[in-house]
Amino acid sequence: MPFSLPIYRHPDLSGPPFKEAPLAQFVRAEKPGVAPENYHATSIYPEYFHLKKGVWDLPKESRMDCVVVLEDTGALVVKEFRNIKAGDSIACGRHENGEDGIFVHTQAFDFMDKTSEKFAFRSRITRETSFSIDYDELYDLLEFEREYGFIVWVLGPAVVFDRDARNAFAELVNRGYVHALLAGNALATHDVEASLFSTGLGQDIYSKRTVPLGHYNHLDAINTIRRVGSLSLAIDQGIITDGVMRAVIAKGISYVLASSIRDDGPLPEVVADAYIAQDHMRIITRKATTVIAMATQLHAIATGNMAPSYRVQADGTVRPVYFYTVDMSEFAVSKLANRGSLTARSILTNVQDFVVTVERGLRMRAG
Amino acid sequence: MPFSLPIYRHPDLSGPPFKEAPLAQFVRAEKPGVAPENYHATSIYPEYFHLKKGVWDLPKESRMDCVVVLEDTGALVVKEFRNIKAGDSIACGRHENGEDGIFVHTQAFDFMDKTSEKFAFRSRITRETSFSIDYDELYDLLEFEREYGFIVWVLGPAVVFDRDARNAFAELVNRGYVHALLAGNALATHDVEASLFSTGLGQDIYSKRTVPLGHYNHLDAINTIRRVGSLSLAIDQGIITDGVMRAVIAKGISYVLASSIRDDGPLPEVVADAYIAQDHMRIITRKATTVIAMATQLHAIATGNMAPSYRVQADGTVRPVYFYTVDMSEFAVSKLANRGSLTARSILTNVQDFVVTVERGLRMRAG
Amino acid sequence: MPFSLPIYRHPDLSGPPFKEAPLAQFVRAEKPGVAPENYHATSIYPEYFHLKKGVWDLPKESRMDCVVVLEDTGALVVKEFRNIKAGDSIACGRHENGEDGIFVHTQAFDFMDKTSEKFAFRSRITRETSFSIDYDELYDLLEFEREYGFIVWVLGPAVVFDRDARNAFAELVNRGYVHALLAGNALATHDVEASLFSTGLGQDIYSKRTVPLGHYNHLDAINTIRRVGSLSLAIDQGIITDGVMRAVIAKGISYVLASSIRDDGPLPEVVADAYIAQDHMRIITRKATTVIAMATQLHAIATGNMAPSYRVQADGTVRPVYFYTVDMSEFAVSKLANRGSLTARSILTNVQDFVVTVERGLRMRAG
Amino acid sequence: MPFSLPIYRHPDLSGPPFKEAPLAQFVRAEKPGVAPENYHATSIYPEYFHLKKGVWDLPKESRMDCVVVLEDTGALVVKEFRNIKAGDSIACGRHENGEDGIFVHTQAFDFMDKTSEKFAFRSRITRETSFSIDYDELYDLLEFEREYGFIVWVLGPAVVFDRDARNAFAELVNRGYVHALLAGNALATHDVEASLFSTGLGQDIYSKRTVPLGHYNHLDAINTIRRVGSLSLAIDQGIITDGVMRAVIAKGISYVLASSIRDDGPLPEVVADAYIAQDHMRIITRKATTVIAMATQLHAIATGNMAPSYRVQADGTVRPVYFYTVDMSEFAVSKLANRGSLTARSILTNVQDFVVTVERGLRMRAG
Repeated sequence: MPFSLPIYRHPDLSGPPFKEAPLAQFVRAEKPGVAPENYHATSIYPEYFHLKKGVWDLPKESRMDCVVVLEDTGALVVKEFRNIKAGDSIACGRHENGEDGIFVHTQAFDFMDKTSEKFAFRSRITRETSFSIDYDELYDLLEFEREYGFIVWVLGPAVVFDRDARNAFAELVNRGYVHALLAGNALATHDVEASLFSTGLGQDIYSKRTVPLGHYNHLDAINTIRRVGSLSLAIDQGIITDGVMRAVIAKGISYVLASSIRDDGPLPEVVADAYIAQDHMRIITRKATTVIAMATQLHAIATGNMAPSYRVQADGTVRPVYFYTVDMSEFAVSKLANRGSLTARSILTNVQDFVVTVERGLRMRAG
Repeated sequence: MPFSLPIYRHPDLSGPPFKEAPLAQFVRAEKPGVAPENYHATSIYPEYFHLKKGVWDLPKESRMDCVVVLEDTGALVVKEFRNIKAGDSIACGRHENGEDGIFVHTQAFDFMDKTSEKFAFRSRITRETSFSIDYDELYDLLEFEREYGFIVWVLGPAVVFDRDARNAFAELVNRGYVHALLAGNALATHDVEASLFSTGLGQDIYSKRTVPLGHYNHLDAINTIRRVGSLSLAIDQGIITDGVMRAVIAKGISYVLASSIRDDGPLPEVVADAYIAQDHMRIITRKATTVIAMATQLHAIATGNMAPSYRVQADGTVRPVYFYTVDMSEFAVSKLANRGSLTARSILTNVQDFVVTVERGLRMRAG
Repeated sequence: MPFSLPIYRHPDLSGPPFKEAPLAQFVRAEKPGVAPENYHATSIYPEYFHLKKGVWDLPKESRMDCVVVLEDTGALVVKEFRNIKAGDSIACGRHENGEDGIFVHTQAFDFMDKTSEKFAFRSRITRETSFSIDYDELYDLLEFEREYGFIVWVLGPAVVFDRDARNAFAELVNRGYVHALLAGNALATHDVEASLFSTGLGQDIYSKRTVPLGHYNHLDAINTIRRVGSLSLAIDQGIITDGVMRAVIAKGISYVLASSIRDDGPLPEVVADAYIAQDHMRIITRKATTVIAMATQLHAIATGNMAPSYRVQADGTVRPVYFYTVDMSEFAVSKLANRGSLTARSILTNVQDFVVTVERGLRMRAG
Repeated sequence: MPFSLPIYRHPDLSGPPFKEAPLAQFVRAEKPGVAPENYHATSIYPEYFHLKKGVWDLPKESRMDCVVVLEDTGALVVKEFRNIKAGDSIACGRHENGEDGIFVHTQAFDFMDKTSEKFAFRSRITRETSFSIDYDELYDLLEFEREYGFIVWVLGPAVVFDRDARNAFAELVNRGYVHALLAGNALATHDVEASLFSTGLGQDIYSKRTVPLGHYNHLDAINTIRRVGSLSLAIDQGIITDGVMRAVIAKGISYVLASSIRDDGPLPEVVADAYIAQDHMRIITRKATTVIAMATQLHAIATGNMAPSYRVQADGTVRPVYFYTVDMSEFAVSKLANRGSLTARSILTNVQDFVVTVERGLRMRAG
């Protein structure tokens, strides 16, 4: 069944109580990085700001837990606290029903409606939840998004610890289903390790044999890239000949490798400052229409925090942003849900099987 | 690569110290169900009993944690404690090196050798272990066993909570990869529920919609089968038209549905007495050459306890019995390993993906 | 803060729509163990049956997923399907609002009200949920129940694998906080193993040293008790000198040891037939006012299924039944929640710490 | 039982084969951040470098996965790859038995010996492992270390999501059991949130009630501290009145708050650059004699990577460094083990119970 975008329910803000609502208040920031008292923080929902009598404006690009700055141009910009400049004009007010001139649109799409079954039997996603439909819908979605959207993948290193999963993901890249990649030093390091030594942390990614002195392999991989200067140069010089990073770089796909305190190395491309990394990641998530986060709690939550639930498209229409997480543990899933990322869909499985299954499923459809 | 059976290393018991070893001692049981002092308990390994000077005998069918009874016919029978009869002649002695006339053959096959890598980096199976090779080897194995072996599947109910997994498993049955099924009341109940109502515990197994009054569905499924009298009759009468149990029964495949205290119902076929159920299960596991246990800790451990690590074939050769567990949790896997089931291979993933992937993988090979 | 029972909200069934409601329909069962079409199945809530014009009756003892039988005495008995006799008069009708003469009282107590926070941030119980209040409330509750209630503990074997936990639980028994025990063969077996050998599955329960031939210990424990004939006799003869079972039996506390297909042995007291075991367990849960299930998914769900959410006390007042589960995994907790056991409270932790903390907490309060 | 340090087994490097061993080779780094070919990478063990005929030197401060630099002063410095300077003289050679002039001392302490039980029954740590002895030994150790050692705690935010755990940890600080703290922005943020609003992510840390607009609380906490300028100033001004950070800062204890891409804010004290954060963390771990990492996989692995297994004390004696992890999941524990952190001890439980139990246990001992 071909995918079609759900219709956005434009809120009617012309009648009561919105008609009588005050204008949204904006207060100047006194210090950089500090919001004024009573600042309004964004949610995952579309939010409208009453800027002029009868005119409610929706920021084009949003994310949760930020402030809203009214620029001199009249544009509304959603900004992280750390990026607030002194003098920024920041929306204030915490009522979400319009009485502060701010309306949080929690019913923007059909699927945001809360189901109201009386016996909420099996309401939680667990490993025993059926996922057949999720795969089918995901195939429809990915085929659509490949052409019309922007698909961001967020990867933990587990994806490259298994030969078939690593190959399958590279194939997804080659076939156009990957528009951007967010990951950390470990993903790239072990991907290079696999290319150079066929191992992940010293263990063969197919035979599982632990190779002699294998604990050197990821260090050698890092040291090699540091000597050469970059992943790109290592690809050009024929040092890296396969894998995820080669596919991504060969296709000219945007990626961010963010740092963490667990990193060895790091590889030259890794953004050392976590907040600069966030800025880079947000540039990518701004464009996202679908995000798929696999086998990484850290990057999944980070991306989930900055991914909006909607996008205003070039033609002014509003569409939802889809967010999938793939993880083995109910804890990881509940944690994301507890943070308010209500629109995230979760598939509980091993990411190796997930990526192999998705690649194969898309290929079989293509015929 | 076609599968070939590993060679059994027949122990040389003709030289020292075995040559001088005493005969194995057998002591009569005084009470039913009670072993004599110093009884010998079986392990998962092949064990030889010195019956006559120079003659060491290997029981044809074994399992761990049992006693060994010397029958009047001269045969060695491995027996659960509860099945000991007064007067049974039971092997005694706990040394395993021959000095009690008993030799435990821990090096029976190549793969039983302990690896002795110095840096035992990544020695534990986790969700991040590579499983590509396991799938490939499993395909080889299942193709071989379909023709020459006896494949026992052990299923938790999760397999039938998902449409694709349920269909895939039924297809494995139809294509000859299932020679026996061990499960509980829940597997069969929810399989019937799926056939009658397309739900599992009231939730559609494809759309995931919770249907109105869906909490009645599994009770109605049970009540229907109890009214009809059996699963077979329900199939004959066209009440059950698809699914795992229909495929199994239609093919005349052996199965045991064992009881548990969690059961509703139960279905008529369920064996109420857990120890009679064990007897039935053991009749099946005696024949097993490969066991695959999915998404059930209870049944996996139960079957693991009674599955031997080897089988003496009709022609006298000895072959290993393969045991796979598929589970989401490292705990389940470690628990099995901690019980001494050293030969079990574990794949950490969602059983839905596992069974769909295996069915598809075998089909693609078949061409 | 001393515990006080929450007030039951007696439903007003005298006005509309109940005044005009039909009487509840009862249909005779034709076959033993089979309910008539359209039978009514019980929920976890108090349910009222319209027996005579204006008279709505509440079964004194309930549990979910059963039928309601109107006895010749006029009493309503909640019965498992397997216990239905031919000729039993069984309530029919699946509307729960009175229109079938049946009213399901989902708002019986304050705490059953659904909270309706808009941002349901952190609504799920995870390992990161705060549990301080649960301990405090549990102390209040246990002190109250020790005097006025009936506290049923449901134990997995993990409780006796650790010296301090095993001692703490025995101390809870000695100090009167345990009125009944539900467990399996493994709990009792490893408790006896600990008494005889200081080990659990061959590992010292304090030092963690694996003792030589330790894999014999649980088998020897079982064999010893089978030879002696019972746990009680083994206690009388000074064979079992400490632990959970000795404390329970010495105090004359009711217990059920239910079978499972994982059992070695079993011990003589174990009820082999799972459904007879259920009957025995239900006799105990009928009396329960608080149930605490620790480290056992099988027994926790089994007991959860048969524990009612309320009890009609001798004086006719209705009180809630409290149900706690203690487990390490969000999956176990979600699984229970998905089965509709809405009133269960979950504490996610290691049962060893839980039982030690509870025993110590109660002791410190006692001063 | 009072704790006493295990004796270090000084290796005898005077006889063969060490006597004939070549000197260790050192090669100059050509580029900053890049090691020469065949560089030697450190392990978690003490390692000796043959610097002059018959003189084998042990670096005073080590960590795994680094290079060893011979300084002009003759000192051996263990250095991360990123900190290599052009011209650094770096040890080369990967044999660990002395034949490259490098000896890795894997048997430095008794407890490093591999146990060699034949039936390695229950060899893995799971939630069902007994932990009584770990608590007792930890009490002994902490009492010793409070006086003679340097105890580093590594904390995930879960510790401050629960009232009792948060108070207990603050009490451990006050009573001298905490010499340094390693954590992230989240720990400090939610600790401040608890002080200002009694909530964690908007949920009361005792009553568990979700407070209205509670999703603002952690943002308000961060914004408040950013306005004031620092945690210290907020304490001075009476804004933060209790909790972990107040206790730590009031006692003048060293701490590092490392960044991550999940951070909101961040708080002013957070080190944005992950590698500068690593440098700060290593300054602290260099001094560590005991490390306890709770409820944080990211920080636990990061610290585990940089914590040595031994320390050379002021008087030249060598002592082990103890490393504990407390986590709910076998996966986290196995992951650490798979990275080679063989000396880590794991306790599988909820950190809330762990910290409350430890604080209470130490207090009860103190009498």
